[in-house]
Amino acid sequence: MKQDGRTVRIVDVARVAGVSPGTVSKALNDSGSLRPATRERVRAVAEQLGFVSDAGARALSMRRTFIVGLLSTDDVGRFSLPVMLGAENALTVGEISTLLATARRDSVREQHHLRSLIARRVDGIIVTGKATDARQPLRVPVPVVYALTPSAGPDDMSVVPDDAAGMRLIVDHLRTLGHRRVAHVGGRADRHASRVRLESLRAALAAAGMELVGPPLFGEWSEPWGRQAADLVLRETAPGALPVTAVVCASDQLARAVGDRLRERGVRVPHDIAVTGYDNWDVMWEASRPQLTTVDMELETIGRRAAERLLAAITAGPDDAPPGGVELVPPRLVVRGSTIAGD
Amino acid sequence: MKQDGRTVRIVDVARVAGVSPGTVSKALNDSGSLRPATRERVRAVAEQLGFVSDAGARALSMRRTFIVGLLSTDDVGRFSLPVMLGAENALTVGEISTLLATARRDSVREQHHLRSLIARRVDGIIVTGKATDARQPLRVPVPVVYALTPSAGPDDMSVVPDDAAGMRLIVDHLRTLGHRRVAHVGGRADRHASRVRLESLRAALAAAGMELVGPPLFGEWSEPWGRQAADLVLRETAPGALPVTAVVCASDQLARAVGDRLRERGVRVPHDIAVTGYDNWDVMWEASRPQLTTVDMELETIGRRAAERLLAAITAGPDDAPPGGVELVPPRLVVRGSTIAGD
Repeated sequence: MKQDGRTVRIVDVARVAGVSPGTVSKALNDSGSLRPATRERVRAVAEQLGFVSDAGARALSMRRTFIVGLLSTDDVGRFSLPVMLGAENALTVGEISTLLATARRDSVREQHHLRSLIARRVDGIIVTGKATDARQPLRVPVPVVYALTPSAGPDDMSVVPDDAAGMRLIVDHLRTLGHRRVAHVGGRADRHASRVRLESLRAALAAAGMELVGPPLFGEWSEPWGRQAADLVLRETAPGALPVTAVVCASDQLARAVGDRLRERGVRVPHDIAVTGYDNWDVMWEASRPQLTTVDMELETIGRRAAERLLAAITAGPDDAPPGGVELVPPRLVVRGSTIAGD
Repeated sequence: MKQDGRTVRIVDVARVAGVSPGTVSKALNDSGSLRPATRERVRAVAEQLGFVSDAGARALSMRRTFIVGLLSTDDVGRFSLPVMLGAENALTVGEISTLLATARRDSVREQHHLRSLIARRVDGIIVTGKATDARQPLRVPVPVVYALTPSAGPDDMSVVPDDAAGMRLIVDHLRTLGHRRVAHVGGRADRHASRVRLESLRAALAAAGMELVGPPLFGEWSEPWGRQAADLVLRETAPGALPVTAVVCASDQLARAVGDRLRERGVRVPHDIAVTGYDNWDVMWEASRPQLTTVDMELETIGRRAAERLLAAITAGPDDAPPGGVELVPPRLVVRGSTIAGD
């Protein structure tokens, strides 16, 4: 639209380009037979004037609305937000608009949103949640991709972080640094991420000939619990004999708290005990002393991949749908001062 | 829609209710003359069958799309997110769908989003940013309300937190507790919030007969800076004579760091020095020892009010537009252990 707020119409483009409105329409919709030079000139004029074709009309002609629903199951938080932004970014690149729908853990609200999205005739839906625990599949007549929070239906399309790979990265890093005896501080025991990370930690430690010392410690995803857990790790310590040389934490929040408590107890990080986090959450790793070695789950990539798979399914149509299944997005190790001195 | 994914049509409702499709339409659109009992029965059947009126058709008949654009200027962060969720919630209650558009500090991207929103014929736009520094107004042919980040145009509709009132709440609380000498730890000096909060702090302290000790300390919105600032506050301290009895911080992140550093220096919070935050950010106030007395800006309310003003402007139409101007949303004091012992 122009600076004065008046919308540029197709007749404006036609007048400036010196063609008929019908020719403008053909040029912009890639339909009809036009000379390439004409098509190019019309497009250049339309671009110059800031002409926007009527998305509604375009959608009607292609039987698509070019709108995708973005449904969050829970309150949007620091995990689902980057996923949603990654998806929105990829959809914007694909010239798709994004309808936002937050269900806030309320199934009535979720059903309301779904009816509304279907009434809007969205081309597809991306579903996110705040954790990797599987959720019930949606029953809707359009393609759906689940991001971060996978569908319980094995044939659905889901994109999730590869937490097992993340723990292997941590163990491999600690092994390289010479650690052999490791403790684990987790958050809530009932979470899928907690189970996957512990299992992967155990397997990776066993494969590396390293030892998990003491029981895995589960509690809350909070700093107070992290500080308490650090005391538990040190409980068995005889003077001069630390029980472990590294504490692997299931989140940056826990790792930050473990580091704080170790310092308060006179234990030097990383010289006496190394500490690792999970999430690469700037608020936590920047404030930690020293800053945290951690794993980045690549949440924006998870959102982007979900959008890409959804667009592929929309383009393919119901009779030629791409295969479902869970896609694991590889995480990235970020090394900082909590495992390597001098950072 | 039904569980099998088939959309319930208006004829389905008509058949079950034993009326004509035209009667269904009148009952659901509140148009025409129908007996109240008929209207009620049709509505009950529609509800029971999960019938959704075609939003597109409804929009066409009322010359509205019932879609609002939600444009964020910056990356969406912990301040803009609750504003956006508050707006989305209020719009959902009003049966309005929300198109998400994140500009990520990129003006080209913002222009692209605006063209796309206008092409979608949104009824209006809510604009948010991550800070209270004013932004250039949008030039679009639909109503706009600015939330959290106000428009530089004085006649535009903006909804922002009342930071001056927040600082007055803090000072009044400290005065009641008997504090007289106060230091201020701020974040970035070039921010509008920093200026407003300092000015309001100065005025409130003067009015209460209290003293701002030392220069206001500005740096970053980070914990490392907060810890450094705590050292600066204590710099002038003669043994046994603390320079101040309270440190008023411009964020919870700063207050948490100030509290950590004071404890490390052997200063007891709140017995020796009370500490106050700003934001009521759970990640920070929950982890602080003791937990933080702080100010809640009511960010969701800001989003909700923005949505309500936008809907009022849309309903009124261009010839009867409600007045513009900045609406200040009152904040809320939250008292915890960092100012009152025993929490």
